[in-house]
Amino acid sequence: MPSDITTLHPFDQATRVVAEGGRLRGATSDLYWAFVGPFGGATAATMLRAVLEHGERRGEPLALTVNYCAPIGRGAFDIDIRLLRANRSSQHWSIELVQGEEGVVASATAVFAERRPSWSHQPAAMPRVPPAEQLSSVPADKFSGWPRQYDFRFASGGPHFAAALNDAATDARSEVWLADSPPRQIDALSLSAMADAFFGRIFHVRGAIVPFGTVSMTTYFHVDAADLAAENIAGLLGVANAHVFHKSYADQTAELWSPSGRLLATSQQIAYFKA
Amino acid sequence: MPSDITTLHPFDQATRVVAEGGRLRGATSDLYWAFVGPFGGATAATMLRAVLEHGERRGEPLALTVNYCAPIGRGAFDIDIRLLRANRSSQHWSIELVQGEEGVVASATAVFAERRPSWSHQPAAMPRVPPAEQLSSVPADKFSGWPRQYDFRFASGGPHFAAALNDAATDARSEVWLADSPPRQIDALSLSAMADAFFGRIFHVRGAIVPFGTVSMTTYFHVDAADLAAENIAGLLGVANAHVFHKSYADQTAELWSPSGRLLATSQQIAYFKA
Repeated sequence: MPSDITTLHPFDQATRVVAEGGRLRGATSDLYWAFVGPFGGATAATMLRAVLEHGERRGEPLALTVNYCAPIGRGAFDIDIRLLRANRSSQHWSIELVQGEEGVVASATAVFAERRPSWSHQPAAMPRVPPAEQLSSVPADKFSGWPRQYDFRFASGGPHFAAALNDAATDARSEVWLADSPPRQIDALSLSAMADAFFGRIFHVRGAIVPFGTVSMTTYFHVDAADLAAENIAGLLGVANAHVFHKSYADQTAELWSPSGRLLATSQQIAYFKA
Repeated sequence: MPSDITTLHPFDQATRVVAEGGRLRGATSDLYWAFVGPFGGATAATMLRAVLEHGERRGEPLALTVNYCAPIGRGAFDIDIRLLRANRSSQHWSIELVQGEEGVVASATAVFAERRPSWSHQPAAMPRVPPAEQLSSVPADKFSGWPRQYDFRFASGGPHFAAALNDAATDARSEVWLADSPPRQIDALSLSAMADAFFGRIFHVRGAIVPFGTVSMTTYFHVDAADLAAENIAGLLGVANAHVFHKSYADQTAELWSPSGRLLATSQQIAYFKA
């Protein structure tokens, strides 16, 4: 890692993990701020990075579950990390983000694996959408906070939020080309963040912004670093949808597709809403 | 819990958790045995039960992630359980299954929540399949191990496994009516197990049984105990599918539907395969 952090991409700056006095530490980023805390994708990427940069880490990210336990305050946090189990070709890690007297504000488990060659088959197909170049970006000045750190080009299901709630539900599905802004090569860290770079499905179906927060998110990585190097991309197609909204909680599914039609990652999350 | 465990349903017996000398303990069940360890669904339900029956538990299961760290040996295990965080209406738990000198063989995180009334909307629709009564059960003597503890009635994508691998991939999707055998009222515990009661998708697409093991599974509960009581069911429709098989790992998605068309739970898992 370069010692001068000002040379880092804002995403790498926001998700930086440093060893200080035998502990791992990080800090929230104002650039990646959400309503009442940091963008959940930045938190996920920070916790994944704590493992990725750990000296005992072997293999590549396979599964990451992040539980958002409590609002994370602006500023520094500690990261407690534990290798629960190492097998011949996989590792199971536990990661906790701790903030002073608040205690554990986020917990995560991560599975890393050395991916061996096998039969390959992708039954899922990328949706047919116009290429990113043919779609226009949502102007950054439409946003505040973390969405300004991404380039969004909606193929369907764009944000059309009014002051009042819909009574008739709008489609929960969105198809959107996503890229870091400024551009950054896609890697496992950015996949772990982009899996959360969708607006709450409740905002879409009810056509308005309501109190909302991700409670737990799980992402599976379907490619390794060599596959990603072969794709060589700075943007991807994200597809988000939901199955059900009930008793203050809703799910969200997400697929992250390379422009070549390869499924890079799938993710699901459960989120609180008030509506 | 009745003190005479022989009066318990085999599922409740298999997922029993007892307090012994300040620790929680459980044991594997021969009835719910899989290839090289206990049925992953029974392990998931056991870890969920450890929280459900804990004196400090408040609210209902919302999210459960189980990481299968290592093969679990036949016999007893300890369960280490920690309340990471309690908020006004939710709790975050960490659960570890520990087996003697083997150390941690499974880890889990569970979110419990008190589900408050809200706007309800279910964009997902149950697939149109014949009712369970119109389909015949797979004869139990076709199976060994845990599948004998379930009644399977396939509407599509049944198990047709030969000795040799397909070259042309078969559809990864299965629709199957599932019930405990003998019958048992569906609750959150059985949902957490039934989320794993599908045959490895790799067996379906390649038409043969190959080395396989779930690495991590996450289940979201979309109903609470009152909703389940209103459904009053002993069987449900399971729909399983997969997005991608690549470099020795594949995902699986699962939906669990009540006969009335209500989505009870969704689940995803990532699994190792050798093929």
